[in-house]
Amino acid sequence: MNFKLRAATKDDCKDISRMITELAVYENMPDQVKISHEELERDGFCQNPFFECLIAEVPEEQKSKEGFTVVGYALYFYTYSTWMGPTVYLEDLYVMPEFRGNGIGKGLLCKVAEVAKKKQCVRLQLSVLNWNTPSRDFYAAKGAKDLTATEGWHFIRFDGQNLDNLVNEAPTN
Amino acid sequence: MNFKLRAATKDDCKDISRMITELAVYENMPDQVKISHEELERDGFCQNPFFECLIAEVPEEQKSKEGFTVVGYALYFYTYSTWMGPTVYLEDLYVMPEFRGNGIGKGLLCKVAEVAKKKQCVRLQLSVLNWNTPSRDFYAAKGAKDLTATEGWHFIRFDGQNLDNLVNEAPTN
Repeated sequence: MNFKLRAATKDDCKDISRMITELAVYENMPDQVKISHEELERDGFCQNPFFECLIAEVPEEQKSKEGFTVVGYALYFYTYSTWMGPTVYLEDLYVMPEFRGNGIGKGLLCKVAEVAKKKQCVRLQLSVLNWNTPSRDFYAAKGAKDLTATEGWHFIRFDGQNLDNLVNEAPTN
Repeated sequence: MNFKLRAATKDDCKDISRMITELAVYENMPDQVKISHEELERDGFCQNPFFECLIAEVPEEQKSKEGFTVVGYALYFYTYSTWMGPTVYLEDLYVMPEFRGNGIGKGLLCKVAEVAKKKQCVRLQLSVLNWNTPSRDFYAAKGAKDLTATEGWHFIRFDGQNLDNLVNEAPTN
């Protein structure tokens, strides 16, 4: 299968938005998606964008059943380790089901790794759900370490009322 | 105990660097710290900084045994959720042992929550080691959710040779 990997443009945000929802459906959390393609346009294509994104595109003659030629994406940004410095964090890596098994996911991952190296980041990090065996196997086969399993790192989140509570208790000095 | 919370300046990087190492010692991973205070100065105080940092400072008359007045820090940056938009990620929250129990850690956390709200971030996230019961209890008492325990999220990392391997396999198209 022919495919091309390229940097996303503002015009891709409708496709990215569609695939974000497809990925959330796969992760059994479609209700959590509150982002519109307008917000993606604003947040990713401004002076200091919150994220960067790569797109996988197939030729018109190989388009999906529904007529899409943008069939995968990798959305990432830069974080910071106080031990190791700048790091790339891969928020989403997705390929539409009918296009899997053609090296598109691997191609996207390798391209993001290339960006990391270019930006002098010594780490590429991401997170995955423990029941998502295909993804865990995919990363493990490429040598990734599961830091939750080996070192015991847990994700913690404040949001909604518990975040508001913190704000209300912030010292004024 | 009197303390003041304020934004870090470039001049604080030596103190931040010292406390990064103290925190890594507490986390039993001191060998992982490869960052110098010069790198913190460069990465945090440039045109598009990789992180922001708050400092906790006590008056001269309450300085630490070793003579330090900068006794805690909260280092954070902005990440992006493709479900919810901009998010604050708290990389490090630390208070020197002899200054704990005075509300400094809580003050720093609440101040970071305030930053999150001001920047229209609906989430404040962080990670913690599973054996670090004092920290886990601290966050849980304030209403934080442990997403690894409840949803099964695992941290995955590529670095060193496995990251290089990805780069070497990146498609050229």
